[in-house]
This record gives sequence, C-alpha cells and structure tokens, in this order.
Amino acid sequence: MPNIAETLFQLLLILMAARVCAEVAARARVPSVLGELAAGVVLGPSLLGLIHVDAPIQLLAEIGIILLLFEVGLETDATLLWRAGPKSAVVALAGLALPFALGYVAARYLFDLPQLAALFVGGTLTATSIGITVRVLRDLGLDRSHEGRVVLGAAVLDDVFGVVLLALLYEFAVGGGVSLGKAGRVLLFMGLFFALAPVVAKAMSVVIKRFDARSEIPGLIPTTVISLVLLFAVLAHRMGAPELLGGFAAGLALSRRFFVPLGAALASDPAFSERIAGQMGPVIHLFTPIFFVTVGLSIDLGAVDWGSGFIWAFALVLFGVATAGKMAAPWLISETPQSRVVIGLAMVPRGEVGLVFAELGLASGILDNALYTGMVMIIALTTLGPPFLLKGYVARNAARLAPPEASSRPPAAPPRGQGGAP
Amino acid sequence: MPNIAETLFQLLLILMAARVCAEVAARARVPSVLGELAAGVVLGPSLLGLIHVDAPIQLLAEIGIILLLFEVGLETDATLLWRAGPKSAVVALAGLALPFALGYVAARYLFDLPQLAALFVGGTLTATSIGITVRVLRDLGLDRSHEGRVVLGAAVLDDVFGVVLLALLYEFAVGGGVSLGKAGRVLLFMGLFFALAPVVAKAMSVVIKRFDARSEIPGLIPTTVISLVLLFAVLAHRMGAPELLGGFAAGLALSRRFFVPLGAALASDPAFSERIAGQMGPVIHLFTPIFFVTVGLSIDLGAVDWGSGFIWAFALVLFGVATAGKMAAPWLISETPQSRVVIGLAMVPRGEVGLVFAELGLASGILDNALYTGMVMIIALTTLGPPFLLKGYVARNAARLAPPEASSRPPAAPPRGQGGAP
Repeated sequence: MPNIAETLFQLLLILMAARVCAEVAARARVPSVLGELAAGVVLGPSLLGLIHVDAPIQLLAEIGIILLLFEVGLETDATLLWRAGPKSAVVALAGLALPFALGYVAARYLFDLPQLAALFVGGTLTATSIGITVRVLRDLGLDRSHEGRVVLGAAVLDDVFGVVLLALLYEFAVGGGVSLGKAGRVLLFMGLFFALAPVVAKAMSVVIKRFDARSEIPGLIPTTVISLVLLFAVLAHRMGAPELLGGFAAGLALSRRFFVPLGAALASDPAFSERIAGQMGPVIHLFTPIFFVTVGLSIDLGAVDWGSGFIWAFALVLFGVATAGKMAAPWLISETPQSRVVIGLAMVPRGEVGLVFAELGLASGILDNALYTGMVMIIALTTLGPPFLLKGYVARNAARLAPPEASSRPPAAPPRGQGGAP
Repeated sequence: MPNIAETLFQLLLILMAARVCAEVAARARVPSVLGELAAGVVLGPSLLGLIHVDAPIQLLAEIGIILLLFEVGLETDATLLWRAGPKSAVVALAGLALPFALGYVAARYLFDLPQLAALFVGGTLTATSIGITVRVLRDLGLDRSHEGRVVLGAAVLDDVFGVVLLALLYEFAVGGGVSLGKAGRVLLFMGLFFALAPVVAKAMSVVIKRFDARSEIPGLIPTTVISLVLLFAVLAHRMGAPELLGGFAAGLALSRRFFVPLGAALASDPAFSERIAGQMGPVIHLFTPIFFVTVGLSIDLGAVDWGSGFIWAFALVLFGVATAGKMAAPWLISETPQSRVVIGLAMVPRGEVGLVFAELGLASGILDNALYTGMVMIIALTTLGPPFLLKGYVARNAARLAPPEASSRPPAAPPRGQGGAP
C-alpha cells in the first residue's frame, strides 16, 4: 500500500496547490483557472518537479474534464440562444470562423507549421470560455444587459461548435488525413444525439426522479448521474469521438431546457434539474481542478528555447489574431459601435475548450512542447487582458450602452423556469 | 487513451452494478451494503470476471473507505456518548471484548488457526455497524428511545475502539510480532490527535469558513475538506497507521461537537457543519460503493472448497460467537430483560469496520481466501438476521420497553445545536 499512500499524497498536493493558487488569482482579479494552471507549472517539471502524473491521477484528470464539459452542457440553455436570436448566431459563427481561419493561415504560412498543427492552432482560438465570460459579465453588472444576452447566446453556441470542431479535428488527426468516414461518424454521433437526447433525457429523468423519490439509500443522484456521464463518455469513445464530448452530451440531456421545440414538455421539473446541479456541484468542483493542474504539469517551461524569438513572435501574432477575430465579429450585426466593442471584448477570453484543443494536440504529438506552451500563453493572455479593458471601456461609455432589458439587478430569487442567464 | 476509456468503462460497470444491487437489497429489506458486495461478487472472478482491479480503481476504492470513515467520524457526536453515560461504555467495551476474545479462542483452538489470523477473526467481530444500526433503529421508531440512546452511544464508542484495535492489529501484523514501539506510535498518534484535534478543528473551521464566505470560486468545501481528509490519511500512514484512520480523525475533527469539555466552544456553528455534511454527502456517496464493490471483487467463491465442511462450521460457530458476544454485553448493566434483549440485538450487525478488518487480513496475507469468504459470510449473517428478530421482538414486547425519553416522533425540524441522534 505504499503506492496508494504516495498517490494520495500527490492528490493532496494537487488539490491544495490548485486551491491556493486559484484563490490568489481570484484576489488578483485574474480568472481562477489560471491559478490552477500555475499550480501545475509550479508542482511540475518546470519548477519543483514534485509530481509524476501516473495512471490514477490521469484518470481523475480525465474525469475532471469530462465533468467540466458535463457542467457546461448542463448550464447550456437552448431557450437563451433562441431569444438572443440571429445576432448571437452571427457573432458565434463569425467569432469562430475568423480566429480559426486567421489562426490557421498565420500558423501555416507565417510560421510554416505543418497542416495538422496549424489546424489545431486555429481550433484552440475558436471557443470563448463560457465560465470566464459569464463571471466577467456578472462582475460588471452586464449579465442582464442586451449586450450580455447576445454574448451569452454566442458563447453557448460557439462552445457547441467548438466541441464539434474539436471532435472533427481529433478524427482528422487520428485518421492521419481527411477521413470523411470517421468525420461522418462523429457527425452521425452528434446528429443521433440531437435526435435522441430529448427522448433519452425524458426517460432518464423520469427513472432517476422516481428512484430519487423512493430510494432509501443516500447518494442516488451522484452515482446515477456520474454513471450516465461515464456511459455517454464511453459511447463517445466507441464512436470515435473524445470522451469529453460524451460528458457534454450528458449535460445537455439533463439541462433544464434542452430543446426549444419540446421545451415546454421537457422543462417539466426545473426543481429536479436544480437538485441535480446542486448535488453534482461539489463532485464537479472536486475533479475539475485536477485536470487544469495536470495541464500545468504537462508544461515544461525549461524545455522551451526562450531565446529563439519564435515563441515570442508566435504568441504575440496569434494573440492578436485571437483578439481581432472575436472583436471583428460583432461588426456584422446592427449595433451601436459601443455595443459592438463591448460584445467583442467580452467574447475574447478563451478557456477550457481551447486548453482541451491544445492538450489533445500535445498528447497526439501534433503540437510540440514549444507550440503547446505558446498556445497556453495565448489562452492566458486572452483571459488576462480583455476583462480589464472591458471594465475600463464600460465605465467610460456607460451612458451610450443599451439600457438593461429587465431590471438591472436580478431579483433575490429569480422565478424558476423563466430561462435567463444560465 | 484506450486505457483510460477502458477504466472509465469499468468504473461505469462498478457504479451501475452497485446501485442496482443496492436498490434491490433495499427493496428486499436487506442492508444495501450487502447489495454492493454482491455487485462485486457478480462482476468479479466468482461469476462474470468482467473487472480487473487496477491501480486507478484501487485508488478510488481506497478514497471511498477513507471517506466512509470520515463520514462516521463526522457523525460521531461526543455529547451523545456523554449523555448515554456509563451504560453505553459498558455495552461497548463488553460488546467489543467478548466477541474479540471468544472469536480469537474459537478460531485459535477450535479451528486451529495461526495466532495472527485468529486475532484478525476476533477483530472482525468487534465493531457494530453504526450505519446499519442507526437505520434499523430508525425503521423501528426506536432511535429516540432509551434503548436507542444506549445503543447509539455504544455503537459510536465501539467504532472508535474498533478502529484503534484495527490500527494496533495492523501494526502487529506488519511488525510480524509484538512490536510495542510501533503499537505505541499508533497510540501516540491517537493520543496526539485527541489532544490536538479540538485546536486543529477550531483553526481549520475558522479558516475554511472565512474562505467559504469570501471565496468567489465555487467548490471550496469539497476541495478543502478532501484535502484535509487526505492530509490526515497521509499523516496516519506516515505514523504507521492505516490511511482510513486519518479519514476518521478528520471526520471527528470536523464533527458538530467533537469534545465534551470544549463542546460549548466548538459547537459554535452547527449550520456550517451541516453545510460541510451536505456538500460532502454526494462526494462520499459516490466513492464509498466503489470500496464495497472491490471487496466483492476480491472474493473468489469459485476458489473456496465448499465441500470441506470447514467453511460451514467456521461460519456458523463464529456467527454464534458474534451474536452471543453482543447479546451478553447488556446483561452487565441494570435494565429490564426486555431492554437488554433489544439493546443486544441492535448491537449485533457488523459492517464497514468488520469488512475493513477482513479486507486488511486478506491483503496482508493473514487470512486466506476461504477464511476471508467465511468472515464476509459472517458479517452478512449479522446484518441479515438480527434486524428481523429485533422487529418481531419489539412488536411483541412494546408495552414492556422503556417509554420514549422525548417525543416519540422527532419534530419536523429539530432545533439546531441540541445534540441528539446524529
């Protein structure tokens, strides 16, 4: 058992370092996910070299990212998207296509990267981080504003697209070329899921709810929901998609309102959805940091040739592309210039999905250590700068922004079932 | 990543099988832990042979048992013990010493087992299962009765003694002989803990509570509490005690009222303790079944020589010893004969601690497969029979039992801070 004690000790180090660094980051008004990454950098080969990521830790990290995507799915409200309307869709699609295309072109032709690597670089820049964006908007009191609604809808949408793109690129990478068959299989999986999920969700929630009401054994929700998530993850893997896509699918299936046309029928018990979210929260928040710390652990700053100039040029150019792509998107919709700037800035932060792109790129050997470190730096820059810029811009232009659509302060206990901010 | 997907699939099988079997057991009025053990037997080498327990699953199982002992510690209310008074102590000590001594003698001289094996057999029979006893008492409406109080106090006490005995026997086993130094170190650990825990608990709960109030990052309680549990587990291991003892210590330190003399000072925020219990519940209930399933997985019914007669004689004799030892204990205190029978029957069920004894005995090679299977059978018998007998006995003797001490029905929302049933 010395082996297990050693792993328990490593787990203790990971959880404690993640928490301390995340709290320090939060105090410094920096997204806490950066603190968790930093914890991994500190514990890992870059600095202390205390932790060797073995199979058990890797499993916990994988469960962490699957559960994070489950939570994103769970918080995805299709009605929100519906209401924010075509504007969100335009911002999401343009804000996904522009950074992807520009990132690919810059990586392929400016930095001479191989095609697959350039595709992963572009992919890493696509998805706005829902978590960071929601937190930034809430901090600025913009979450109930018109701009906030457009941004939330777009962030939700580009997370969906980002995950699908990730699955396609993953297939592309695994297939070693343009494998339409495999890509088709992933699309089939997504299609099948979107066709069947409402039925499955209905059936599952009825079964889980019935047992939840009758079961005398505690812990029904965490065990059945985790089983469900693992089932979807294993199914995704069997169909050639990454496991985390299954987590996302399971989250969508259990979310409060999954599908607009059937919304009324499926939103039958928001209290039960909240019960699930409440009980799963502690489990999700326990596992998720382990993933981000292992991302930090996989970074070896010492192995990067900091003197070469390449890494600096690469990070700066792609940070520019990542920012410009998201900032340009709102100019395709009819808004005041001020609103466009706010929407664009709010869309810049990249997070979980981008890190997963970079992580998959590294794990599959498509990105080398220098490129991977560069991508993580770019993601860090997008979460560091824009929130500060947005804060200053909103303060200077408060009068010219659209007035809040409802009350500017959310009511103490928002009525249930009225889709709003997730 | 095929390796991780395979482990995720095994985890899915374990969680689903545990839940299904536990629900079936609960429907059949059988303790659900037996269902979880059965799930392991079905999935393991005894029947289907679907699961090979590798390092990641073993880690999850170990975390599961550490968290279970954490929960037992968390639910331990020292004031309860104080109030139930010397009667509980007599029942606990006699109910621990008698089965241990009788079990040892029977195993050593009737079945000719080696000394260490006989000690582990005796140890397995010592601790009443708090969880099962509490559930049985509650089902029969006896949890607020005089007998119920004595039983709860005794069950809490013999869990503490059982865990200490386990640590001592473990040391004895690891040392290969009577190693007073190592045993002393374990006792020192317990002594140090009991001396320092109130201070540590106070300090920790202040720190965690302050961060809990201020932290903007969700998941503070699960990550910090699990870190604390792992810290105590690693400390226990470093001091030569099993990790689960650390979990128990962490639970006691965070329990609502840890230490009687300082009770008033430490019971300062029962709401916060309840918040911890509420958030840790889902995490504990997720991990714990994994332990019991792996116990079932470690059983190989096919390897037992069912025709030898030894296993049958062994199981029946030791089941008799296990029952007689607990039934005899209440005759040392002044009660009506009816109350003595009720207390004795309620104390018979063995559970988690007994399984941990048996499991440690198997893992360290002290118990062979046949003996281990026999011990698990005995534990199963103690949880199967007595609850039925108790139900019938209470129904026939309701008039002669002591009247409930307070209202026979607990109030809908018992006032906080008034120690009662945990």
